[in-house]
Amino acid sequence: MAAPQETPRYTARLLIDCADQPGIVAAVSGFLFERGANIVSSDQYSSDPIGGRFYLRTEFFLEGLAEEGERFKRAFEMEVAQRFAMEWEIRWWGERQRVAILVSRYDHCLVDLLWRWRRGELEADVVAVLSNHPDLAEEARVAGVPFHHVPVAADSKRDAERRMLDILDGKVDLVVLARYMQVLSGEFLERLQAPAINIHHSFLPAFAGADPYRKALEHGVKLIGATAHYVTAELDGGPIIEQDVARVDHRQSVVDLEGIGRDIERLVLWRAVSLHLEDRVIADGGRTIVF
Amino acid sequence: MAAPQETPRYTARLLIDCADQPGIVAAVSGFLFERGANIVSSDQYSSDPIGGRFYLRTEFFLEGLAEEGERFKRAFEMEVAQRFAMEWEIRWWGERQRVAILVSRYDHCLVDLLWRWRRGELEADVVAVLSNHPDLAEEARVAGVPFHHVPVAADSKRDAERRMLDILDGKVDLVVLARYMQVLSGEFLERLQAPAINIHHSFLPAFAGADPYRKALEHGVKLIGATAHYVTAELDGGPIIEQDVARVDHRQSVVDLEGIGRDIERLVLWRAVSLHLEDRVIADGGRTIVF
Amino acid sequence: MAAPQETPRYTARLLIDCADQPGIVAAVSGFLFERGANIVSSDQYSSDPIGGRFYLRTEFFLEGLAEEGERFKRAFEMEVAQRFAMEWEIRWWGERQRVAILVSRYDHCLVDLLWRWRRGELEADVVAVLSNHPDLAEEARVAGVPFHHVPVAADSKRDAERRMLDILDGKVDLVVLARYMQVLSGEFLERLQAPAINIHHSFLPAFAGADPYRKALEHGVKLIGATAHYVTAELDGGPIIEQDVARVDHRQSVVDLEGIGRDIERLVLWRAVSLHLEDRVIADGGRTIVF
Amino acid sequence: MAAPQETPRYTARLLIDCADQPGIVAAVSGFLFERGANIVSSDQYSSDPIGGRFYLRTEFFLEGLAEEGERFKRAFEMEVAQRFAMEWEIRWWGERQRVAILVSRYDHCLVDLLWRWRRGELEADVVAVLSNHPDLAEEARVAGVPFHHVPVAADSKRDAERRMLDILDGKVDLVVLARYMQVLSGEFLERLQAPAINIHHSFLPAFAGADPYRKALEHGVKLIGATAHYVTAELDGGPIIEQDVARVDHRQSVVDLEGIGRDIERLVLWRAVSLHLEDRVIADGGRTIVF
Repeated sequence: MAAPQETPRYTARLLIDCADQPGIVAAVSGFLFERGANIVSSDQYSSDPIGGRFYLRTEFFLEGLAEEGERFKRAFEMEVAQRFAMEWEIRWWGERQRVAILVSRYDHCLVDLLWRWRRGELEADVVAVLSNHPDLAEEARVAGVPFHHVPVAADSKRDAERRMLDILDGKVDLVVLARYMQVLSGEFLERLQAPAINIHHSFLPAFAGADPYRKALEHGVKLIGATAHYVTAELDGGPIIEQDVARVDHRQSVVDLEGIGRDIERLVLWRAVSLHLEDRVIADGGRTIVF
Repeated sequence: MAAPQETPRYTARLLIDCADQPGIVAAVSGFLFERGANIVSSDQYSSDPIGGRFYLRTEFFLEGLAEEGERFKRAFEMEVAQRFAMEWEIRWWGERQRVAILVSRYDHCLVDLLWRWRRGELEADVVAVLSNHPDLAEEARVAGVPFHHVPVAADSKRDAERRMLDILDGKVDLVVLARYMQVLSGEFLERLQAPAINIHHSFLPAFAGADPYRKALEHGVKLIGATAHYVTAELDGGPIIEQDVARVDHRQSVVDLEGIGRDIERLVLWRAVSLHLEDRVIADGGRTIVF
Repeated sequence: MAAPQETPRYTARLLIDCADQPGIVAAVSGFLFERGANIVSSDQYSSDPIGGRFYLRTEFFLEGLAEEGERFKRAFEMEVAQRFAMEWEIRWWGERQRVAILVSRYDHCLVDLLWRWRRGELEADVVAVLSNHPDLAEEARVAGVPFHHVPVAADSKRDAERRMLDILDGKVDLVVLARYMQVLSGEFLERLQAPAINIHHSFLPAFAGADPYRKALEHGVKLIGATAHYVTAELDGGPIIEQDVARVDHRQSVVDLEGIGRDIERLVLWRAVSLHLEDRVIADGGRTIVF
Repeated sequence: MAAPQETPRYTARLLIDCADQPGIVAAVSGFLFERGANIVSSDQYSSDPIGGRFYLRTEFFLEGLAEEGERFKRAFEMEVAQRFAMEWEIRWWGERQRVAILVSRYDHCLVDLLWRWRRGELEADVVAVLSNHPDLAEEARVAGVPFHHVPVAADSKRDAERRMLDILDGKVDLVVLARYMQVLSGEFLERLQAPAINIHHSFLPAFAGADPYRKALEHGVKLIGATAHYVTAELDGGPIIEQDVARVDHRQSVVDLEGIGRDIERLVLWRAVSLHLEDRVIADGGRTIVF
């Protein structure tokens, strides 16, 4: 059964990022108040009131705004944003971001995201699935999403990334690495012009290299987990969005651990994607603020 | 080792509760901006933009405010609060609330709170321990807190509550029921003029009546938990502040379950008390907003 | 990608349930030792050494056993089982139980189980999907499982149950209620001759009746959970197999909570089904032993 | 209130560790059956039926055993243990292990263990507290445990370890490192002749070196945890006994994280010590089996 249709919970969402200084909230809230906006929710965060960054996420009702959208934006730019040198964005209720999913051969994250998309839980447009293997073409086809097979050989990585950029360029707002097992180059990430979210397993402590579940088993680890993070040029080192763990014990085999790992991975990836699509995640240097 | 001394993270904290309507944030932030305040953190919540309640918690730096405190308060009352019929409060950095702890014979929550208080983690003044039993007098004495033994017999409950009110009246900002096994009357709660936080065990599903851990064991419950909530006249039905659970299995006895239950209870109660003392908990009808 | 093919981890699994008394383990292990069995794992539990029940689950290697299976069984019955009045069972490596899934209109548990089945994680034969609604026929068809639409009207419940029994009778080893919203009669359960596992949401505390997520929200609940249990004539009161919870907060709507609830439900149901299929769950009176 | 006095749940506990081979369980259970023992619980684990190690932990009632203890032990050695080259041990109900606690200046783990000991939850004899700082002498004194101040200077580490061995030699069955901030030498560990359990913070991913909570904060970590493990010459690399985590978010300061870390550390250390004292933890190579 699809998720029930919701009545709008706000008219628009305003996202602001600028150097912190006194008066930002007064200016923004004064601007909204004068136009008769009804604020539904508002989250703000200052990394440091002296010399830090200021982040604001506010949702408000404002009748007639849809028709007056461009005028509203121009006024905000002139009256508020320029004064504080803001980076800012308006997202309308019901506006959908475009998402591409990159995947290799493990299907659990892809299947989960496509299922949530079909039932209306993942509120975005999934516009493409790209893979370096042909295995999961059918999963995309059943869901009605174009599938692009872009093989990556050791000596053709540059070419493959170029082909992927051709497909993605200017057409996506978010790239989700749903167990895509190739490292993306810094150049690719820069040209992509869209954030990318990755998922990987995590342990206490970490086990580097191949076959981490076997290593975890051999050290008697009692918790296995997964971390979803924004992708940066530093492998697996980008700002963390979401993490979770599950208990394991000595009776479980490596196969069991991998199964438990899959369940955490798809859940953590979904939560991270969902938080991102609701504009709740702000990358502040090496870390994230999650409103 | 005591917690390291912290430098002030704000000058004052402003807490507001009023009927929601457009312009509140604009008025408050405008007021603070004109005086040169630097907002460090701000959380707000509206239960419903049409006809709901509005809650704000903001922390800000403002040099010289300590000396000008009364003038600042008068100005805020005149210029902002009256216009929106606000209930509001200012809490200064370092200002400490007065806390009384009620306890019966189980010591785990009391011992934990007193230890956190001695090491500077519980940032408040613990002014009294009251008990219907004499057993825990020594715990209070060692911590340097006055202990009041107020026995409660079946036919003397009214008298006992009157004696407790004599001790507490006007002297406390918060009452913590650290496994106090007597039900407090609605009249007592009304006269107390201070919020009270209680802790009790919780199960999935709930097991009413005596010996809940045995019942939980007999139903093969896999999780046992604890709930901290504000006390209302409805027994165990007040707004929930914090909850947590721990896994159990069939190998554990009732004694084991009780031990695990104690560990969750003291942790959940501590978190609830700590959140309350930081003014992060707002009772909104039957539920809480936790900023 | 399908789960990697595993080499056998045992030849057979022996399950025993009988009145506890001295000598059971000596007799069973002596029997296995004489035949040259190599015990891989063994779990036992006694509800009470005086007058309680004794449960044993043991996995062992024994070359040539597959061919000698019937002879081995007869010998065990004669030499060991009769002496202790045991209920017992042998399950061979690779032997698959037959599972039927009952569902109404919520798809999350069904989709999840079918996906795990297709990828080889759910090691059983899913032989039928039965539903009182036609909505999920396509999900079953894609997975290649026969779908039976058995409508249930207020006055035709007996008939519907009879039709379901016709389909299931003698053909299933386990029935999974994957959000099947009809209460099954005691008569149906008795005639079914197979265990049934149900999943339902759980809260701390419990909220009875309709719209539990709204009620949970209104009480400010901080944890929502799910419970999987064996079905008995007592509604939602059967022995608990598995439970889990997730944190929620005041920013989440009823729709959000329902989504989080779905994620816990399908995970908890899967874990319960998986534990059952591995013969790890033993119902001991009103509770379960989970090896 | 002290934990209620328990009636014995078994007469003795038998612990066995040997090379796996067919017939061990048959021999052990036959031996116990012949003497009329009533087995209460039994856990066994084989790391690999071909060439692995076999571990058994069994609790049983046997009337009159206390008086016949030495004879029982001799018979077991002759009739069973020698045949399988077993390492084995008998622990009587009520028999208490001797525990020494090593600590530096952080008090949370020490205070927690001493409190559990005073109330009868930690069932052992705490015979000494050793510290390289004098700060926590009073905590030990109040609990009635001898406190030994053994300073450790950069150039006197060998001397300090010798002094500690003089105090501990032959007098303890377990050493608990309750936030002891000195690395113990391999030589010390070897001479100690008793297992040592350590606790340290753990993150997903790990942050090496100083000030880990600050680093965790800067990477936006969403979970912080603690790991209790047996101490080996490899720093923080010994077999893991227990782990747990707690959620954190961007609103929390380094001081907050340290407080949350303390709460997990003392809980995880306690669980590990408790499991060890119940003989539930078996070190199998680099990992543990926890029955």
